[in-house]
Amino acid sequence: MAAELTEVTATKCFEGWQKIFSHKSDELKCAMRFGIYLPPQSEKEKVPVLYWLSGLTCTEENFVTKAGAQRYAADHGVAIVTPDTSPRGCNIKGEDDSWDFGTGAGFYLDATQDDWKTNYRMYSYITKEVSYKEQCKLPEVIQANFPVLANKQSILGHSMGGHGALVCFLRNPGKYASVSAFAPICNPSECPWGQKAFSGYLGADRDQWKFQRYDACHLMQDYDGPKVDILIDQGKADNFLTAGQLLPDNLTVVCAKKDVPLKLRMQDGYDHSYYFIASFIGDHIAHHAKYLKAS
Amino acid sequence: MAAELTEVTATKCFEGWQKIFSHKSDELKCAMRFGIYLPPQSEKEKVPVLYWLSGLTCTEENFVTKAGAQRYAADHGVAIVTPDTSPRGCNIKGEDDSWDFGTGAGFYLDATQDDWKTNYRMYSYITKEVSYKEQCKLPEVIQANFPVLANKQSILGHSMGGHGALVCFLRNPGKYASVSAFAPICNPSECPWGQKAFSGYLGADRDQWKFQRYDACHLMQDYDGPKVDILIDQGKADNFLTAGQLLPDNLTVVCAKKDVPLKLRMQDGYDHSYYFIASFIGDHIAHHAKYLKAS
Repeated sequence: MAAELTEVTATKCFEGWQKIFSHKSDELKCAMRFGIYLPPQSEKEKVPVLYWLSGLTCTEENFVTKAGAQRYAADHGVAIVTPDTSPRGCNIKGEDDSWDFGTGAGFYLDATQDDWKTNYRMYSYITKEVSYKEQCKLPEVIQANFPVLANKQSILGHSMGGHGALVCFLRNPGKYASVSAFAPICNPSECPWGQKAFSGYLGADRDQWKFQRYDACHLMQDYDGPKVDILIDQGKADNFLTAGQLLPDNLTVVCAKKDVPLKLRMQDGYDHSYYFIASFIGDHIAHHAKYLKAS
Repeated sequence: MAAELTEVTATKCFEGWQKIFSHKSDELKCAMRFGIYLPPQSEKEKVPVLYWLSGLTCTEENFVTKAGAQRYAADHGVAIVTPDTSPRGCNIKGEDDSWDFGTGAGFYLDATQDDWKTNYRMYSYITKEVSYKEQCKLPEVIQANFPVLANKQSILGHSMGGHGALVCFLRNPGKYASVSAFAPICNPSECPWGQKAFSGYLGADRDQWKFQRYDACHLMQDYDGPKVDILIDQGKADNFLTAGQLLPDNLTVVCAKKDVPLKLRMQDGYDHSYYFIASFIGDHIAHHAKYLKAS
């Protein structure tokens, strides 16, 4: 039977439906929301599914209202699932003190530190959610409730969510048909955002970070899965690029060593915003559709 | 010389630029913001311009972030100007008491009632803005500061802004090459929103409302301008349609009498939201481009 989902909103969009659901997450021990866009094709047949992971401060809604992705999802006949970016309302001390740590900043990892380890388990939530009744994983929650194809899924994201997408892809070879990212945090162990998050969630011992396997550059060094093209768009006018938060060059170096085809497009004049995402999301959805529709 | 504009933001989007400006409006006696999308073509040549008027509660930002219009504007090479929906911060008694009157609800008219008549002059602001230094009109403010073609402009809007677009078009034959609307308030004299706004801004005497000329159904009865196709999209699942706020059938009747070609598309399953707008804004921009590019 399907997991218990509550439909929060359902709105027709490009002949399909943009919906928001809430559910109780056993993994995160709190109520969570996610968005799903169901393209018109899903009324007649099962469709592939894209997982979109958002950046710092976002909820399940930012991508849904601002990226303009529904048009392309309708064109290609793919569903898009948009999870929230952290647990909410867990009453952890310090949870709401920063915009780049705690609420809205779950970093798609499973925390190991005492205050955070009970709720902050976004990695498991995204990749192997256990629903509170049926013990099924998130892809299974999605598959049990919506007309999506089993084993036809890909993942992408923005900034912190780009980091999340790369990590989920690299840690689970074959699980996702393809991966792409907008301005991802490529090497969190070496940038201020990542160091703050890893210190708080994983502890101050940097040697442990590598063992915990949440850094795309480290994971790429050990990666031996399918060598699919990785598409990354990065704005050249992105303040966080110049601030050293994103470090795409570090990923380029490792990919070259491993002979993994990375298509890093440096986009002239673009910043870190949803205007940047909207401008290129069509290319990303086409990229994933190519892999998802290959038999 | 150009009017004094302050650039608030400038963000690259679909190879063009989405910008927000603020300026002091003599017409409204307050600071106002507007958005403008400049398509990539505008770097080499002057382009036509669309005026988008938003609905109740909106600012200059809603359409800019949610409609996904920039892609189509870039395709067709048209600029889009998005004004705010009312004066702001005028300290008028009751200004912020309702979501459908006062701030965010200027109704694109020039008020005649004492409390409102000094600032609430959105009709003049949209159609003949006088800047505080150069005595030029809004189209002239736009033309003086941006690479847009003189006399190549069209107008469209949503809900209250659909009403505004129809009124601006019908009162100024030839000024706008074309008009379209999403779920417009077609007959404000006969619906609760319009009656509240007209009573407050224009006074309780209903006979005066017709004389003031802010009702598209009344204006259409007297219209003798160019008979261009009017495109209107209306969601069938729009709660405000069933609540009798929009009354598209009343406009259909008058257009038929006057032999004005109204293309009213009743869209199955769509509501009043920006998801509805996003789904069809491409058709609207193509509609206007056809008229704007005709020599």
